[in-house]
Amino acid sequence: MKLTPKGRATRQRIVEGAATYLRGTDPGTATLDDIRTVTRTSKGQIFHYFPGGKDELLLAVARHEADRVLLDQEPHLSRLDSWASWTDWRDSVLARYRSQGRRCPLAALMDQVTTTPGSVEVVTELLDQWQRRVAAGVVAMQEGGRVSTDLDPARVAAAFVAGIQGGVQVLRATGSTDHLEASMDLMIDYLRAA
Amino acid sequence: MKLTPKGRATRQRIVEGAATYLRGTDPGTATLDDIRTVTRTSKGQIFHYFPGGKDELLLAVARHEADRVLLDQEPHLSRLDSWASWTDWRDSVLARYRSQGRRCPLAALMDQVTTTPGSVEVVTELLDQWQRRVAAGVVAMQEGGRVSTDLDPARVAAAFVAGIQGGVQVLRATGSTDHLEASMDLMIDYLRAA
Repeated sequence: MKLTPKGRATRQRIVEGAATYLRGTDPGTATLDDIRTVTRTSKGQIFHYFPGGKDELLLAVARHEADRVLLDQEPHLSRLDSWASWTDWRDSVLARYRSQGRRCPLAALMDQVTTTPGSVEVVTELLDQWQRRVAAGVVAMQEGGRVSTDLDPARVAAAFVAGIQGGVQVLRATGSTDHLEASMDLMIDYLRAA
Repeated sequence: MKLTPKGRATRQRIVEGAATYLRGTDPGTATLDDIRTVTRTSKGQIFHYFPGGKDELLLAVARHEADRVLLDQEPHLSRLDSWASWTDWRDSVLARYRSQGRRCPLAALMDQVTTTPGSVEVVTELLDQWQRRVAAGVVAMQEGGRVSTDLDPARVAAAFVAGIQGGVQVLRATGSTDHLEASMDLMIDYLRAA
């Protein structure tokens, strides 16, 4: 659907309002009417911007939350060109997930849209972007002569994405960020040794 | 519930039959009657062994699948005392998840019992056992003089659990074991360098 700049702004306002609301509510039990009320939107507007109804809206919110996962790691994630920046990044990731705790807004949304077309792309696109930025950081460290060029940046970045994902999974199950911290520290130590 | 040896055997037969059946069926849509039919069990028997009904049975199957996750990694996981054994373990984990593909039987069950009492313990117990065995492997390598005693075995093992968990998460989302492989290889390389 082609939207005018004003239409895009309205759609964005609905997505952001819904995102804030759904961070405090189970997306499974929230109704479109609840979301209409908190975002002060008419039924006609909702179905104009999200013809697929609740699933399409939740998927748009999931995409918004996925973007936030990366945004919350900036400016560090896109500037991994010194050991200090890797440490700052590690600290920012840990702080983010510590404050988030067991309840992951993106995961709660994804649980609701598993069969909605486009839901797989939200996750694969997030992992892909995340991995690319870490890989760019490894390349920057190699160019600066701080990390061996024997390492394959894409593979190292894939390991980082796996370790962080797993650490967040364990956090969701146990409420502790210990695994996330151990994983990031091991991988950064690995880079330092290389 | 105290069970006689015969009772334990019957309960185990039901759990194993249900596990086999639920590996090929969505546990969310499977009914107790379906499970009764495939395990040739009467309604009375099912409710005798699983008074809580479907949720209790699914949780018992989840516990069984969690045990299998570890069993499938044996004999390697409990004998990580040489570099060859770490490589064999890595290969067995990758082979297991490659053949399993996107559909994780344990995760499919856990999705159904998130609010059932005892479900959190199934996951935390699995992670704990897994981490302990990897930590014992790190200690064995330290005792053999192959890995620096500066490393904290519990933290290294936590990182392994996170990396494998995350790799399996990415496999579920993308169908690829590349992240799992990159993660295990990075962590074993890290140990070799230490």
